[in-house]
Amino acid sequence: MTRPRLRDLGIRIGRLPAGPHNAITDVPGVWVGQTTLRHDAPRIARTGVTVVVPREGAIWGDHAFAAYHAFNGNGEMTGIHWINEAGLLSSPIAITNTHQVGAVHEALVRYGHERRQMKHWLLPVVAETFDGWLNDAEAHHLQKEHVYQALDSARPGPVEEGCVGGGTGMICHDFKGGIGTASRLVETSSGRFTVGALVQANHGDRDLFRIDGVPVGREIGVDRVPRPWGTARPAPAATPSSSIIVILATDAPLLPIQCRRLAQRATVGLARVGSVGHNGSGDIFLAFATGNHLPANPEQPVDLKMLPHVHLNVFFEAVAEAVEESILNALCAAETTTGQQGRVAHALPLEEVKRVWEKYRGKT
Amino acid sequence: MTRPRLRDLGIRIGRLPAGPHNAITDVPGVWVGQTTLRHDAPRIARTGVTVVVPREGAIWGDHAFAAYHAFNGNGEMTGIHWINEAGLLSSPIAITNTHQVGAVHEALVRYGHERRQMKHWLLPVVAETFDGWLNDAEAHHLQKEHVYQALDSARPGPVEEGCVGGGTGMICHDFKGGIGTASRLVETSSGRFTVGALVQANHGDRDLFRIDGVPVGREIGVDRVPRPWGTARPAPAATPSSSIIVILATDAPLLPIQCRRLAQRATVGLARVGSVGHNGSGDIFLAFATGNHLPANPEQPVDLKMLPHVHLNVFFEAVAEAVEESILNALCAAETTTGQQGRVAHALPLEEVKRVWEKYRGKT
Amino acid sequence: MTRPRLRDLGIRIGRLPAGPHNAITDVPGVWVGQTTLRHDAPRIARTGVTVVVPREGAIWGDHAFAAYHAFNGNGEMTGIHWINEAGLLSSPIAITNTHQVGAVHEALVRYGHERRQMKHWLLPVVAETFDGWLNDAEAHHLQKEHVYQALDSARPGPVEEGCVGGGTGMICHDFKGGIGTASRLVETSSGRFTVGALVQANHGDRDLFRIDGVPVGREIGVDRVPRPWGTARPAPAATPSSSIIVILATDAPLLPIQCRRLAQRATVGLARVGSVGHNGSGDIFLAFATGNHLPANPEQPVDLKMLPHVHLNVFFEAVAEAVEESILNALCAAETTTGQQGRVAHALPLEEVKRVWEKYRGKT
Amino acid sequence: MTRPRLRDLGIRIGRLPAGPHNAITDVPGVWVGQTTLRHDAPRIARTGVTVVVPREGAIWGDHAFAAYHAFNGNGEMTGIHWINEAGLLSSPIAITNTHQVGAVHEALVRYGHERRQMKHWLLPVVAETFDGWLNDAEAHHLQKEHVYQALDSARPGPVEEGCVGGGTGMICHDFKGGIGTASRLVETSSGRFTVGALVQANHGDRDLFRIDGVPVGREIGVDRVPRPWGTARPAPAATPSSSIIVILATDAPLLPIQCRRLAQRATVGLARVGSVGHNGSGDIFLAFATGNHLPANPEQPVDLKMLPHVHLNVFFEAVAEAVEESILNALCAAETTTGQQGRVAHALPLEEVKRVWEKYRGKT
Repeated sequence: MTRPRLRDLGIRIGRLPAGPHNAITDVPGVWVGQTTLRHDAPRIARTGVTVVVPREGAIWGDHAFAAYHAFNGNGEMTGIHWINEAGLLSSPIAITNTHQVGAVHEALVRYGHERRQMKHWLLPVVAETFDGWLNDAEAHHLQKEHVYQALDSARPGPVEEGCVGGGTGMICHDFKGGIGTASRLVETSSGRFTVGALVQANHGDRDLFRIDGVPVGREIGVDRVPRPWGTARPAPAATPSSSIIVILATDAPLLPIQCRRLAQRATVGLARVGSVGHNGSGDIFLAFATGNHLPANPEQPVDLKMLPHVHLNVFFEAVAEAVEESILNALCAAETTTGQQGRVAHALPLEEVKRVWEKYRGKT
Repeated sequence: MTRPRLRDLGIRIGRLPAGPHNAITDVPGVWVGQTTLRHDAPRIARTGVTVVVPREGAIWGDHAFAAYHAFNGNGEMTGIHWINEAGLLSSPIAITNTHQVGAVHEALVRYGHERRQMKHWLLPVVAETFDGWLNDAEAHHLQKEHVYQALDSARPGPVEEGCVGGGTGMICHDFKGGIGTASRLVETSSGRFTVGALVQANHGDRDLFRIDGVPVGREIGVDRVPRPWGTARPAPAATPSSSIIVILATDAPLLPIQCRRLAQRATVGLARVGSVGHNGSGDIFLAFATGNHLPANPEQPVDLKMLPHVHLNVFFEAVAEAVEESILNALCAAETTTGQQGRVAHALPLEEVKRVWEKYRGKT
Repeated sequence: MTRPRLRDLGIRIGRLPAGPHNAITDVPGVWVGQTTLRHDAPRIARTGVTVVVPREGAIWGDHAFAAYHAFNGNGEMTGIHWINEAGLLSSPIAITNTHQVGAVHEALVRYGHERRQMKHWLLPVVAETFDGWLNDAEAHHLQKEHVYQALDSARPGPVEEGCVGGGTGMICHDFKGGIGTASRLVETSSGRFTVGALVQANHGDRDLFRIDGVPVGREIGVDRVPRPWGTARPAPAATPSSSIIVILATDAPLLPIQCRRLAQRATVGLARVGSVGHNGSGDIFLAFATGNHLPANPEQPVDLKMLPHVHLNVFFEAVAEAVEESILNALCAAETTTGQQGRVAHALPLEEVKRVWEKYRGKT
Repeated sequence: MTRPRLRDLGIRIGRLPAGPHNAITDVPGVWVGQTTLRHDAPRIARTGVTVVVPREGAIWGDHAFAAYHAFNGNGEMTGIHWINEAGLLSSPIAITNTHQVGAVHEALVRYGHERRQMKHWLLPVVAETFDGWLNDAEAHHLQKEHVYQALDSARPGPVEEGCVGGGTGMICHDFKGGIGTASRLVETSSGRFTVGALVQANHGDRDLFRIDGVPVGREIGVDRVPRPWGTARPAPAATPSSSIIVILATDAPLLPIQCRRLAQRATVGLARVGSVGHNGSGDIFLAFATGNHLPANPEQPVDLKMLPHVHLNVFFEAVAEAVEESILNALCAAETTTGQQGRVAHALPLEEVKRVWEKYRGKT
């Protein structure tokens, strides 16, 4: 990670403080692991997988409440029927390229049996965005061992961003996109909690791109930095995929119905950066909360705590800010990438960002 | 109530035991109140209102978890946006005729302010089915004081069924319908709980009507007991309204997501009696659970209990049985009623029911 | 309307052109009618009702496809079960104060019978936000005749904004709020269409308020313009209601599933202005499309047209822009209002807006 | 198929006529293909895959409207986000064992690229129930070529039922289950249409099992035919998986919102046979309608027809009947099967069925 993160540019998003790593891993027990596949032979790979592992990996037997929201459903996130029915997340979450959903799904099932001694059926969460513009997606590069490697390497602390893991081949607001993360600390009379976000950002249109309201996208004309697909915007039906997966985590004791409220607020973060949820976009958001513990097979009523709904207001702001900054971090970190057929996705030009920012907001 | 209830005919539904009153009021703290309007001048009234009052009326400040399910949405149930968002029921539930939803809604709001000193906005639950075939619905008979009267008269114990309250003018499976109720006792390793149902039954087709699988409806031909609208089935578009509202209550500590699971199981009870959810039918089900207490304005996390999901299996059966028997109780209790324009809805002929039952099942 | 609209200040929102009136009435056949109640005796009224009347009032027999989305469900919008089930809007839409939902519902039903000769049950759409801070809501000012008056006065052309109709007593981003509207023209290879929005804006927090990304709210400190409830932000649980109803209309031939996509995009407009969907907010959005005609009782399959999904991208932008500008128009139009108990909600100070705008964007 | 189908026993379900094959393939253009894996070495296989191929395989480019309903979401059906968003089915549907979802998903994606020259991302529909009691599920038997084989062998006409394809290792109402199908012909003033159902039945409890209301399950005691897991019912948490996937097809011109109505009615069919939607059950239903043609990349508005909602009543009955009979056909066809660890799932004893039927209904 040689490129700076957004706040290294002197730009702050929102009014809430970030956690120590400004990453989803600031939520206690939440780990991230990534496997990146980047090679040119025998076929060109610009792909990978990113996993979010709750409860230091104990999620298989110590479930967490969760819920999802689809802002635009042109995408896949498996495992959501049970999350919708029971509100329970019971395995790690994986994000990859669209056409590797099957391979990752099978790998997660096998991992549960082989490494976690799971004895019954598994319904893992696998989400995706499409990297087939840069990556030779039909090569189906990703194998079981790559998923295992991501799971085994998952750890707390700083998270690599940009062209890594599932984000390796992604494109965002017509710049190079990928993985981004951020966090916020929230205080209520119910206590102090952390909200973290991780995105795989592959969505959006240059002209609508904003940083804290500053219209950076339309100021960086295609004459300065070409779009991946050239100066002319392609016909809508020919637009490359544009999707974003958002994973939200908190250590607060939220119910499933409250996780759903958080998940829907990811929309606000997207909207601030300039998304309108294009037709081709799979904009699907999953939120989980580790503040309550749900054993796999309880025999007695489970004791829970529930944050009062009215205390969620600051969580809603935290989600909006963390998602907004996660997208921007993905863009800041991602480097110019050449993929199949000589195609190039240019990095967000940070000097240009600074120039535009100063024009609108003065020296940072 | 001179007519017998279903089990007085020697017919048992399902395999779970009923509570002492076989009524929704078997759930501790759940009261029912009803106002019946039945007069012929100045305009013909066959209408009323039925209220379900959780927590002995303390629901205004001590909320309960709740959720709803629409099997077919050709009807109204107000207040569901907040129930869907927050999972909270915060006032009594009222059921009436379609065109009195407005009057009942306003009355509940006024009651909250005048009698319960509520200081903020109220989003009450008012549901309906349409009695405009027997009742002169355009007369808008029901007034504020009738709703107050129902609320003030709410009490535990036996519930009047048939042509009472909101059920006064209703028609069910082409017989006279109305209000019905039943309950079931459930045991799990989490404890012993009660599930109660109350229906306002105004739906269904004669030919599909069954009692415990016995095709009673098609055995009681229209030559024996005419349909309300004559021998010929009316053209579908001309079919009178046919809807059912189901209210489910339990004292178990269920989360909102679990109330939703219960609400959806009401469909099973309907299906067993012969419903397919006709197009014109507003089949909307609300389930609430009093096992957790949600203060109106908590300042700290709330302590909750949650029944393990796997313990819900017996609740699902209980819901199916209680709803099935509630519909049948409504039919058993309702008496032949003559309404506007000399229209007649015939009571379910109990001697015929016995005859058919014995043919299929032997002496009870 | 002596105060200017947003674009009279030289501020443009988005990149799509507005229709001739920059109002929901730019959609052919969509009319708006409003009744405003503003008096101080016998009890203080700052309330009213706003109606949106599709198809020049022929909607009762010539239905339109529709769908809704709840960004935050702490509010009421009746009639949504049938819209969700069948995708059909079959009567005008009314927006009022929370506690007048009942009265308006009954009035719409009566109007259908008395003035439109409707013969069956009616499930009208009545939505609300809460004006009980300025208005003496417990007085239940609004009567049947006020609703009739709004319906009878509905017309095409310019729409009065700010403190009128249902918006009379509303508060938005801690300034005086109310009714606002805007429109956008969209072109696709499928043809040219209009998208219109109308909002009743009663939501939001001063600090988050933005105009086209410029942080106007935090620049207009509470020392310059007090919040309605004083300098100190009230405790969350004591926060006055904060809700927004959005009505979206288009003349494009959209299916119900496509109307739902439009409805969800209203969230983007809210987010751009600074909403995060606070807990106390009933943020409920209804979208209808008049491009297809659905007779009330068809006997044969209905011929429809459907815009290709991919052509909706520009509609999504249009919705975001029109909702964003509608909220801003509500704020621009609304005048400082004194209500019950001497409470004051201050108008958005337009000179301050200009000052801040020029600071961030230069002379307009 | 040496065992008779239900109606070969002289038992008729419902009042609507069946199509020529009484199968989902009665819907013009709907094909079924199946691959069955049944071997004992190196590891025991009782598994497979069943595919439903709309439009004679042209569905990849000529999409159909579709929708889903989850009666109980303890299962997987991929591809539903786009179906929910856009209402479009754009590839064949596959049903398999839970742990083969990944392999089948990848195979469908590859098939689209290799055999159908698809150029963009694919979000196929793969559904499952769990066969891990009889089948050694951890062996992950199913390979890409098995899916191709099922797709390539898909054809119209009679459908093999019982222990075939995805149904090979399934258990239903404590008898051997599997694949079943049925159809109904419906007539409305809008025309004559076919409704077909196909189920992979792996759900239900013996005691609740009924045929046309006759309590066959409780009459066939566990002393006569043991349950798979012995005489004693296992503790709920230890109950083997119990799920059912239902695929509904019709040639009527239905909108997505109408497909959803059909999908929800599958619940009625399940309920009639004795399901209450147990906690462990993934009861997920998909309905598609081929009466409208949706090209993959239309450039102009698409002409559609829509059946009036009121004409759906007979479709609702048809769905209920076809699903009910499909489950019963699965049970009739499935033969006693011995799987891993010597476990036995007994076939529904047809002589016993006849005996019980005659007791309750007389000679057929």
